Amino acid sequence: MSGRFIVFEGGEGAGKSTQARLLVDALQARGREAILTREPGGTPGAEAIRKLLLDPPGEGWSCRSEALLFAAARADHVERLIRPALARGAWVVSDRFVDSTRAYQGGGGGVADADLMMLHRIGAGGLLPDVTFLIEVEEEAAAARVAKRDGEKSDAIGGRDVGYHRQVTAAFTRLAEAEPQRFVRLDGSGAAEETHAAVLQVLQQLFGSLS
Amino acid sequence: MSGRFIVFEGGEGAGKSTQARLLVDALQARGREAILTREPGGTPGAEAIRKLLLDPPGEGWSCRSEALLFAAARADHVERLIRPALARGAWVVSDRFVDSTRAYQGGGGGVADADLMMLHRIGAGGLLPDVTFLIEVEEEAAAARVAKRDGEKSDAIGGRDVGYHRQVTAAFTRLAEAEPQRFVRLDGSGAAEETHAAVLQVLQQLFGSLS
Repeated sequence: MSGRFIVFEGGEGAGKSTQARLLVDALQARGREAILTREPGGTPGAEAIRKLLLDPPGEGWSCRSEALLFAAARADHVERLIRPALARGAWVVSDRFVDSTRAYQGGGGGVADADLMMLHRIGAGGLLPDVTFLIEVEEEAAAARVAKRDGEKSDAIGGRDVGYHRQVTAAFTRLAEAEPQRFVRLDGSGAAEETHAAVLQVLQQLFGSLS
Repeated sequence: MSGRFIVFEGGEGAGKSTQARLLVDALQARGREAILTREPGGTPGAEAIRKLLLDPPGEGWSCRSEALLFAAARADHVERLIRPALARGAWVVSDRFVDSTRAYQGGGGGVADADLMMLHRIGAGGLLPDVTFLIEVEEEAAAARVAKRDGEKSDAIGGRDVGYHRQVTAAFTRLAEAEPQRFVRLDGSGAAEETHAAVLQVLQQLFGSLS
């Protein structure tokens, strides 16, 4: 039995982390080995790079440095955590992966998509998820969710202006339209349990019983 | 008057840092604006990445993550320090640059040279030095110099085994042979002042009076 690699993508406040956690809980409840991870991060090296990315020294990173740092973190994450887990048959569920870099540093930051995919090939062998759920919510609803995260200061990327985040959202849509065989677009504006039920239904259709 | 970008390359203990410093002192004594810098490092962001590279969290970096981190640090260094300095007519003298990545992560670590140059193009527009001095010393002499650095623990890259460092040396030689118009090979086994005199002579031949 081979493992599956499932990723949740979307803008800030879409509900990705919640959906990733609910899916891992559901898989574990069905007796599967399922690993919850996130990007940037997931391994000690990648988490150290995450700190640099979200709280940069000096005057902040250019989009090119940022893209290279994300690729470095992802290379470590893929080699040390994701590939070994998939090889032993586990499910890996990640809150963000390479499409976030394509949407944020590409769509938002202007780095060419071909260059970003080249970095991903060099760093991580170009690994792509089996399924990428793009969770879509209206701008206002997402902003309201982010505002409710009490006490969390927005980071160097999440805190960028509305124009940047609109470009990110548009880029996610383009990516999903360009690869309909890999992306599943989900409305994330309802209750988390509704979105979760839709996630399970899609996975059962694709892979059969999850038990 | 346009600036010049001069780099010193070579293995551990070749005397690169000393030569870089002597050259900057000589240029400043002749009234030039000259900036001494190093890789990885040179800007607050790149110095933060340097710490991650030389003292890695977890089980250490793979050569691919390492190459991406060097490229990220170099992108910041080039954009924030090197290009602005060259644009205002300063000389920039760096202790290591992209050829170190090609020798260490390429020759020593096995990452393809074309991939490393691709990272350099994406991150830093492929900037190359006007002159690259490769300082060559015998293995025993270099080891003796490194041993004399009292109290300095060797870092995660410098501390790798003899086989790795021989591959690095061989890679530097290949790079210099492949680009004789950019590389100048210098014997670094004598006194620092002798090597420095040779450096000044080469630069005067190439660029005329340095005053």
